[in-house]
Amino acid sequence: MNIDDLVKGIAAGERRALARGITLVESSREDHRAQATALLAALPKEREALRIGLSGTPGVGKSTFIESFGMMLIAQGLRVAVLAIDPSSSRSGGSILGDKTRMDLLSREKDAFIRPSPSQTHLGGVARRTREAVALCEAAGFDVVLIETVGVGQSETVVAEMSDVFLLLLAPAGGDELQGVKRGIMEMADIIVVNKADGDLKPAASRTCADYAGALRLLRKRPQDPDGFPKAMMVSALQESGLSETWGEVQALTDWRRANGFWARARAAQARYWFEQTVKHTLLAQLEAPKAKAALSELSDLVAQGAIDPTKAAQDFVAQLER
Amino acid sequence: MNIDDLVKGIAAGERRALARGITLVESSREDHRAQATALLAALPKEREALRIGLSGTPGVGKSTFIESFGMMLIAQGLRVAVLAIDPSSSRSGGSILGDKTRMDLLSREKDAFIRPSPSQTHLGGVARRTREAVALCEAAGFDVVLIETVGVGQSETVVAEMSDVFLLLLAPAGGDELQGVKRGIMEMADIIVVNKADGDLKPAASRTCADYAGALRLLRKRPQDPDGFPKAMMVSALQESGLSETWGEVQALTDWRRANGFWARARAAQARYWFEQTVKHTLLAQLEAPKAKAALSELSDLVAQGAIDPTKAAQDFVAQLER
Repeated sequence: MNIDDLVKGIAAGERRALARGITLVESSREDHRAQATALLAALPKEREALRIGLSGTPGVGKSTFIESFGMMLIAQGLRVAVLAIDPSSSRSGGSILGDKTRMDLLSREKDAFIRPSPSQTHLGGVARRTREAVALCEAAGFDVVLIETVGVGQSETVVAEMSDVFLLLLAPAGGDELQGVKRGIMEMADIIVVNKADGDLKPAASRTCADYAGALRLLRKRPQDPDGFPKAMMVSALQESGLSETWGEVQALTDWRRANGFWARARAAQARYWFEQTVKHTLLAQLEAPKAKAALSELSDLVAQGAIDPTKAAQDFVAQLER
Repeated sequence: MNIDDLVKGIAAGERRALARGITLVESSREDHRAQATALLAALPKEREALRIGLSGTPGVGKSTFIESFGMMLIAQGLRVAVLAIDPSSSRSGGSILGDKTRMDLLSREKDAFIRPSPSQTHLGGVARRTREAVALCEAAGFDVVLIETVGVGQSETVVAEMSDVFLLLLAPAGGDELQGVKRGIMEMADIIVVNKADGDLKPAASRTCADYAGALRLLRKRPQDPDGFPKAMMVSALQESGLSETWGEVQALTDWRRANGFWARARAAQARYWFEQTVKHTLLAQLEAPKAKAALSELSDLVAQGAIDPTKAAQDFVAQLER
């Protein structure tokens, strides 16, 4: 694959080149990794998309929200990319965004780009690939990159590490309980969006929104938040109501963060985070090479037989790895 | 330090040599690590202690239990070592076993050896050091090594990875609830010991014991358990009742496991586990060397400024590390 051509294609906003680039960063083949690194290093750096993290448990209407929200952004002349991190993808073989028909209208738009979650064994691997895919989407001139996830904490954390704004999507609750949303996830949210504020569910959505607004007021104020944030609001993705208001709040928040230095500071901290993660991963990836695996397995057998102490065996292994 | 002399001293069961050996394995100085590895490799391997993991939240009477249980073992002519893993020690500077006066009688016995938790920043580091300290106690001819921990899951897991038997100590519950013991921790327990079965608390201890016995019956049977295990029983560490019964059950369990191959199989799997953990740690420890730290920090600044892509910077860093 010619990396120069790929860079040019991506910089020109060609979706096919972008898709090929993402396939390259998702590959774990050693030669592909080298090409992916060269690609990432050669990408134009001056473009910056708004990266929106979006989390919500199954059933809250994430696909419908992304479809309606994405179509509204496109109607405003923006280009929208949708990526996903699925912590369960190693088991299910990719469950979220796996089916583009879930976003029927959006997937047919020329200004939209939808990519399912890479399937990998480790969440860390999926996350690193997705971070690189975000960089490719940015270089391809997308204005907004939506990063979807569903999980119970860990995947939200990694999505927050690659997002400028984090939205938590909820469904109206039956009673007045807080739907078992973990405190840690709530603390990551910049905007809590209560979906399905339509028809019979509207009163319940109202109550849920008020409950969360109350709960958010009890959290400690973060330096990166202007007055009134984090906030809770209602939308109906189905009836397409509340979407432009949500977008307005996202813009108000990010404008304030840009003006007050928090945007740049967060981006710098995120870049450091991914650098450190990638260093650690690269070091540990040495263990996956066939020769290393064979040596590990041989020493592991000796250790299991009690013929050699685990600490000594580990030292011997690392010493021969470095040679 | 002369490693040969240290090996001889430890093999002769000298407590001072043992203490010096443990100090050596706890050190993170590079020359100490090399000496510690040599020490571990040179230890006699034929001695095998019974390693008992012991967990329980603060207030259940762990110290009193260890004191009474340890004194009973010593009265039977056994030598007893007590080690600890404290997941909070990085913050508090060592809270469990930090004070030997908590085990006043035991600490004065010549056949007892008590060592507080090493203070380290990472649970992983503490755990690895403690695993090595267990190996030293074994080589010093201790018959029983008690490994104490208090935690909410993670530290129990690492203690289970270095124990032959795992005891979960509980206090009598006020009502009939299961004291918020996490399912994961309960599934690790071989014997649940309800302490404080004395005085006013005896009826509550009885109820708690019956509740847990019922809960244990609902868990899936593990291959390494003979009939009747895991089980729940009552003790009063204060009144020294139920202790020899607990010891009897521990022996019955371990005799069965030895006879049926589970003891050796578990030890082999644990040795493999610690080998792999130590390999990973040794690889990542390269990042702690002063030169590597300086290079990391320099590249991290460039990454934060957007001058270099995180993936490319990571690749460059690892490449120069290997040279």
